[in-house]
Amino acid sequence: MADVRTERIRSWWGWGWQDAAVGEAERAGLVARLPPHWVADPLPIPDIDDLELRAPRVRPPGSLARLCTVHPHVRAAHTYGKAYRDVIRALRGELDAAPDLVAFPESEEQIVDLLDWAGEENVAVIPYGGGSSVVGGVEYRGDGHDAVLCLDLTRMDRVLEVDRTSRAALIQAGALGPVLESQLAPHGLTLRHFPQSFEFSTLGGWLATRAGGHFAMRHTHIDDFVESLRVLSPSGTTESRRLPASGAGPSPDRLFLGSEGTLGVITQAWLRLQDRPVHKASRGVSFGDFGSGLEAVRAIAQSGLDPSNCRLLDEAEAAINTGRADGRAVLVLGFESAVHPVDTALVRAVEIAEAHGGTAESRSTQDSVGGWRSAFLRMPYVRDALARSGAIVETFETACTWRTAAQLCATVRSGVLAATEEVCGEPGVVTARVTHVYPDGVAPYFTVIARSRRGAEVQMWDQIKAAASDILDRLGASITHHHAVGRDHLRWYEAQRPHEFHKVLRAAKNSLDPRGILNPGVLFD
Amino acid sequence: MADVRTERIRSWWGWGWQDAAVGEAERAGLVARLPPHWVADPLPIPDIDDLELRAPRVRPPGSLARLCTVHPHVRAAHTYGKAYRDVIRALRGELDAAPDLVAFPESEEQIVDLLDWAGEENVAVIPYGGGSSVVGGVEYRGDGHDAVLCLDLTRMDRVLEVDRTSRAALIQAGALGPVLESQLAPHGLTLRHFPQSFEFSTLGGWLATRAGGHFAMRHTHIDDFVESLRVLSPSGTTESRRLPASGAGPSPDRLFLGSEGTLGVITQAWLRLQDRPVHKASRGVSFGDFGSGLEAVRAIAQSGLDPSNCRLLDEAEAAINTGRADGRAVLVLGFESAVHPVDTALVRAVEIAEAHGGTAESRSTQDSVGGWRSAFLRMPYVRDALARSGAIVETFETACTWRTAAQLCATVRSGVLAATEEVCGEPGVVTARVTHVYPDGVAPYFTVIARSRRGAEVQMWDQIKAAASDILDRLGASITHHHAVGRDHLRWYEAQRPHEFHKVLRAAKNSLDPRGILNPGVLFD
Repeated sequence: MADVRTERIRSWWGWGWQDAAVGEAERAGLVARLPPHWVADPLPIPDIDDLELRAPRVRPPGSLARLCTVHPHVRAAHTYGKAYRDVIRALRGELDAAPDLVAFPESEEQIVDLLDWAGEENVAVIPYGGGSSVVGGVEYRGDGHDAVLCLDLTRMDRVLEVDRTSRAALIQAGALGPVLESQLAPHGLTLRHFPQSFEFSTLGGWLATRAGGHFAMRHTHIDDFVESLRVLSPSGTTESRRLPASGAGPSPDRLFLGSEGTLGVITQAWLRLQDRPVHKASRGVSFGDFGSGLEAVRAIAQSGLDPSNCRLLDEAEAAINTGRADGRAVLVLGFESAVHPVDTALVRAVEIAEAHGGTAESRSTQDSVGGWRSAFLRMPYVRDALARSGAIVETFETACTWRTAAQLCATVRSGVLAATEEVCGEPGVVTARVTHVYPDGVAPYFTVIARSRRGAEVQMWDQIKAAASDILDRLGASITHHHAVGRDHLRWYEAQRPHEFHKVLRAAKNSLDPRGILNPGVLFD
Repeated sequence: MADVRTERIRSWWGWGWQDAAVGEAERAGLVARLPPHWVADPLPIPDIDDLELRAPRVRPPGSLARLCTVHPHVRAAHTYGKAYRDVIRALRGELDAAPDLVAFPESEEQIVDLLDWAGEENVAVIPYGGGSSVVGGVEYRGDGHDAVLCLDLTRMDRVLEVDRTSRAALIQAGALGPVLESQLAPHGLTLRHFPQSFEFSTLGGWLATRAGGHFAMRHTHIDDFVESLRVLSPSGTTESRRLPASGAGPSPDRLFLGSEGTLGVITQAWLRLQDRPVHKASRGVSFGDFGSGLEAVRAIAQSGLDPSNCRLLDEAEAAINTGRADGRAVLVLGFESAVHPVDTALVRAVEIAEAHGGTAESRSTQDSVGGWRSAFLRMPYVRDALARSGAIVETFETACTWRTAAQLCATVRSGVLAATEEVCGEPGVVTARVTHVYPDGVAPYFTVIARSRRGAEVQMWDQIKAAASDILDRLGASITHHHAVGRDHLRWYEAQRPHEFHKVLRAAKNSLDPRGILNPGVLFD
């Protein structure tokens, strides 16, 4: 799939750019860090032309047909998200779920026409942004529809209007991260929403999934930047009034934030922007153990300082990602401002960390922060390479109150470790970091690396993931802080979601999507 | 109505405590500031016992009857909120809308039983906290029910649990501001939600109406403090999981925040708390005109400094409330922290204000801030006295983006002034202040003082208010930033609310309150 702006080609089976995939030399270096008996010959990458996708079951009328493609490469690339289980299945050539058609609408009118046609023909419609879902959010798994249409929004990617005075912009939902930032830059403005998927996810995807972004505190979710949304549902159009805040009834936007394409297609939104920061300061603080680091993070989160970065890495993550070998956990603190120096705030935060047993690093950690950022963006490519080579590599995340945090992190680490041993025959590795923090709680993020058995990778991961999700549910944590529900989290989401609220959501679904064509299987059983 | 904790008696017709009402000497001083030809003999306060309320049309079964009262004083006091039009009607003895019964449940089981009974008997139920609505939120105006039950929650007013680690508490919805703060104080914690109605409004009322509170920025609405809600609807109970944040589907809490008693009765909530601030700093900055002040407020709002107080008073408000006679607008800036000194932040904010043409006051404004606060809390009592004496005195508020702010303030002031002239035969006074600010916009708050004609007060105010609301709607502002919709704003709320979202809300209403007994006439026609 060629990107018109870059001419680089996206991987159809794995993460990111095809030309950025881990090569043989790099792969050899990566697998050298795995136990030797885990390592298998890499799963080959199949040729799509050999895979014989099912023939498309529908054909839209001429005016819509020109918006759609049935090209096997495009259909294959739009079959799954980018979770470990997606990559494995793609590499195995399991593409039964491939959409019959992929549409690339360029206007709201075209989307309306496509929805009308799909409703009449009982065609499931899967709204699709960058396709970076790791929760089965863009994969059709049902059997109640006559065909599946993937609705790729990426040709609707313009910044339509900038309001410099209010520091906000009207942006089309199909804009990928770099595409929207490049249009904001000439105005000296930025959304500063930088999920790991930044290059390969869209504004609409962020909004629909309540994505987590750059800021460790305060503006943690994209939700916090929304002034208004415009949403096309099969029943009609919803456009909220553009306001900095309102007390007029329940928020319309909050119904669609997190609706994951089940209630309508978000086509554009007014977003609050930031001035580009010119003052930055950051510092690393190390701790004897993750638990002490958590206490320091809690104190900082309750101090009102609001660091833009407050990333705590446990001992293993610190070793893997920053190369340190002293067995200490590391907290990276960062502040930024477009208006005034932030050194004082950093000093205060470091003082608080030291008061909780931390040791401030003697030099600025700007280098290691930069290094960590590169490693962070490289991780999904590394995941793909390790996945091909015999390792289960996957992440999951949650949010909980501070009262539960330490116990939750410990229970998840021990419980998931036990699950890897049970499922894989030997224990794997479970690491933890903290990505977003709140005065009243925290969002821990876990990585699992374990030994896979060829042919059983997906089932093995699903068992480990179920064990992890059961622990989160038992301890009252959220099944997701920012990865969304999709299809993979549905069972635990149903346990978490209040029953009466489910009835309301179901009523909303029936009202907005009466034929049930929008992203079936997501949020609703 | 006696308050069990204070033994002070609430006014049945007007604001607050009966013994705090403006006395004759104070009233004489106040009316001396009105044009003499406006001043009329004060409307007498009727004796409830002379008013002959309609006999209650229903009688609940014995177990529920003991929770209810039909005492005329209690029914009269629960008939209206506390808007100008409410006070006038109460003084006129117009109590046709009085509820047949007022219930004081002490447990959720009792609420469930009352809702069940009301549903079977077609009795409208009006959830009632402190009764401080200024938008007709607690007044029955329909005719489709066989009787009206006012559900007074104030006996459910306990802080049930404090989580010091996460800095949060589980609080029953019927707790009035001082009642909940007095229970938090021993823990060194505070909600710091201080609406003008603080003494006479409840947590549940704040949540149901998305009340605005103490903080000028960031935590402006009570919404921002909610971890979870528990809501009893006729269809069943909704309890959200207690979390610092979540990305799992649309937020359940956001459906009930702003639902104004139409979807369920909020019975308790986990709220984020604050440590008591020990560092405070504030300063006044004056401006040649309100527009310059607005520009300074915008720059401060976009600076990331987040003052806790950023209150801009126009020339008239500054004269009335702080006694200054130099015709300048005044910005009161305040910062607070429980952890670190805030002087630097104040200095930076004052610098920004000065760069926008402000003149920093030479001494701390703590005294005038304190004076303003006393005046602020006294205002509703003063309003009642002036209303009795021949003046229309009322407020309204909104929110808009910065792009619209200056034009909106000017248009509202001139348009509402013209409306007073048309309605009252001579122009009144329209003043403006800014109570809450955002990086992308602002919440202006207007006060209208005009000459009333005895017997026509309510119709006159309604005409002025309609003119004001039409301007807000035409300029794309919100019909309310924090006063809620109630019944008085319904027409403009319907213009503001997206049509498809209304269908969803209606579906939610049908699901949660299938017999339509909850606060009929609010949010829904």
